[in-house]
Amino acid sequence: MTKHHPDTPSGERPTGPSRRRLLGTAGAAGAAGLVLGAAGGALGTAAATEPPTDLATVGRSRVPFHGAHQPGIVEPAQAHGHLIAFDLAADAGRKEAAALLRRWSRTAEALMAGETPSSRLHDTGIALDAGPSSLTVTFGFGRSFFGRTGLVAHRPAALEPLPPFSSDALDPRRSDGDLWIQIGADDALVAFHALRALQREADGTARVRWQMNGFNRSPGATAGPRTPRNLMGQIDGTNNPKETDEDFERRVFVPAGGDPAWMAGGSYAVLRRIRMLLDDWERTPLAEQEKVLGRRKSDGAPLSGGSETTPVDLEKRNADGDLAIAADAHVRVSAPETNGGAAMLRRSFSYHDGFRDDGAPDAGLLFIAWQADPLKGFVPVQRKLDRGDALSRFIRHEASALFAVPGGAGEGEYVGQRLLEG
Amino acid sequence: MTKHHPDTPSGERPTGPSRRRLLGTAGAAGAAGLVLGAAGGALGTAAATEPPTDLATVGRSRVPFHGAHQPGIVEPAQAHGHLIAFDLAADAGRKEAAALLRRWSRTAEALMAGETPSSRLHDTGIALDAGPSSLTVTFGFGRSFFGRTGLVAHRPAALEPLPPFSSDALDPRRSDGDLWIQIGADDALVAFHALRALQREADGTARVRWQMNGFNRSPGATAGPRTPRNLMGQIDGTNNPKETDEDFERRVFVPAGGDPAWMAGGSYAVLRRIRMLLDDWERTPLAEQEKVLGRRKSDGAPLSGGSETTPVDLEKRNADGDLAIAADAHVRVSAPETNGGAAMLRRSFSYHDGFRDDGAPDAGLLFIAWQADPLKGFVPVQRKLDRGDALSRFIRHEASALFAVPGGAGEGEYVGQRLLEG
Repeated sequence: MTKHHPDTPSGERPTGPSRRRLLGTAGAAGAAGLVLGAAGGALGTAAATEPPTDLATVGRSRVPFHGAHQPGIVEPAQAHGHLIAFDLAADAGRKEAAALLRRWSRTAEALMAGETPSSRLHDTGIALDAGPSSLTVTFGFGRSFFGRTGLVAHRPAALEPLPPFSSDALDPRRSDGDLWIQIGADDALVAFHALRALQREADGTARVRWQMNGFNRSPGATAGPRTPRNLMGQIDGTNNPKETDEDFERRVFVPAGGDPAWMAGGSYAVLRRIRMLLDDWERTPLAEQEKVLGRRKSDGAPLSGGSETTPVDLEKRNADGDLAIAADAHVRVSAPETNGGAAMLRRSFSYHDGFRDDGAPDAGLLFIAWQADPLKGFVPVQRKLDRGDALSRFIRHEASALFAVPGGAGEGEYVGQRLLEG
Repeated sequence: MTKHHPDTPSGERPTGPSRRRLLGTAGAAGAAGLVLGAAGGALGTAAATEPPTDLATVGRSRVPFHGAHQPGIVEPAQAHGHLIAFDLAADAGRKEAAALLRRWSRTAEALMAGETPSSRLHDTGIALDAGPSSLTVTFGFGRSFFGRTGLVAHRPAALEPLPPFSSDALDPRRSDGDLWIQIGADDALVAFHALRALQREADGTARVRWQMNGFNRSPGATAGPRTPRNLMGQIDGTNNPKETDEDFERRVFVPAGGDPAWMAGGSYAVLRRIRMLLDDWERTPLAEQEKVLGRRKSDGAPLSGGSETTPVDLEKRNADGDLAIAADAHVRVSAPETNGGAAMLRRSFSYHDGFRDDGAPDAGLLFIAWQADPLKGFVPVQRKLDRGDALSRFIRHEASALFAVPGGAGEGEYVGQRLLEG
């Protein structure tokens, strides 16, 4: 099996941190050939004979599986995402869960390298021809996992159920779960292939509890780095913590020596399926939409002035004496300054599942927030939003989950090994 | 409003004909600025200040709205597709339908140019920042449209209902419809924006009957031109008619002087929502999968030998005397040679709507076939497949529709004008 040899960091993605994203550089033709050879894998596809184009960087881009943290957290969100939660089978315990995580890790490592995973099951080749396409696979444990595997003593305190919020309209069938996988890739077939391969490995050990599909802007659709827009048309993520921030690691990842020890290098993921009431939103005049958010639609600049990245001035008043950013504007209520510094790394996907029976679009945001401690991230911010966010009349939280996402696997290790064999 | 000035054909797409696909070339920086300026439209986003990258060609790529044929037929299928069918409101007739097609055409023209459509409704800006991203919008009329608008005398004979097939398991709620729009774009937000904008224009005149979402490989995921793969992992579309074929126009488009006259330059679209029984398929060994299709998984070469583009040799026998391509292989049963030369231009999207209640993936192909006459395209081929295609035990046809897609609008004209004002 030809291996891909990434050695240069790449910064061509539209936005966000990218230190883990790598491109092969054995000469453009050579690199593309390697990737295609690797993707061919056991099915033995012919090496690429076409000259690669610049656009092939989408396929060639590769994220390493091994590392201090799992992939799929600090990398920019990809164009396609699949979220899938499983519950362990009634007869599966700690031993079976450990075997599953071992199979899943081996499969994820191969898929992320653009290789065909070795498996008791043959591969169906959906991802052939394409490179790794920035595929990331991220594994998490839900609160219920620990009871089913006799590991309650190792259950993080941070997995306490999220408090109820007044605006919740949660569907328990699409919430929670013993195990969670987040899949992201810049090619739809690469992402779907990973979903099917990982699901097959769970056969007999865990059954699907729920599954959701999401998307973001395609690489190359904008001319330069851009903060993503959501389906309300709003630039979303400007105030995200940056990897260059001095306190980034501390906010997002559990430190070594934290509690429990097996979570060192890990993070907690809060998932909220947030439906947008787009029919109502789209009938709302632009000026009112901007007032609800506190930012300009066109370029994301705060209504207190400047450009997208200008710090929000919560004290600024207009000529008529009114606050430039309204008291209930989303940007004010969610600002770290008004939440004791609480912050989380948001890395979301939009979703669109057609129309509901009531004729409204079933569309919105698969909101995913990463933090070292949900009680210092999602929970205080959402409590505040729940009380006075002007945006809340345009959205519904319809599903919710919280997962402990352990640190990355070292070479020869599988994800969760420190918990399952600790 | 700054206009985009396309002037070079581009051939960078993975596969298929591309003569309508255009890229701006006013210098890389200039072109990107123009597109971004145009996309900003009435909301007045700032001009691009970032240096454009090569990848921005995805956003910059633009398909013209006006022409002899509607867009979205001969261009390669984009990474994202939305199909939406409408039924006219009870109080809407020919006059209201004409006004709707006029609004839709104006909106589609603006959207495909990367501009914000002017409308009685304000735009929500979901597509801001991105260029046209190869957006195409295609309009069609279903058989029921003609009765509701008093135009039965102008109804094409080709809109006779498709015959029933033994393998049909059709859901009438997701089949047929008075009006149909096919939307495709290489950026998910550009496609969703177009869907919402066009749906809003229908408010009060037509209500949504059904809506489906699909996808294809991302531009740049492969290193060169590639025939698409479907979710079975199979290369799908090798034998598609090519624009360079001598009889391409005749097969795909209704000629001038045809019947009815208003369909000159038009085409008939057959849509079939074909669910793939992926759990069964993925359990089937590779050699058996290849026997079912008659082509090699890895590179699409026919089992009679050669490479993907080698003509299929239906007479070829293996050393043991068996037919190299089995009697019931999909490639044999669907071959033009065995169907009196019947052929159609297939331009499909994969779909994946999560899991069904029975635990199976709700995934497969939004099969779309274009032809000058369904009785010389889809119908004879499907009749043959219905009787003896080995693939049929792995698929279910779950929805079906047939639309008359009129020729393209000339400058100052709207799509369907020759019918509605003829």
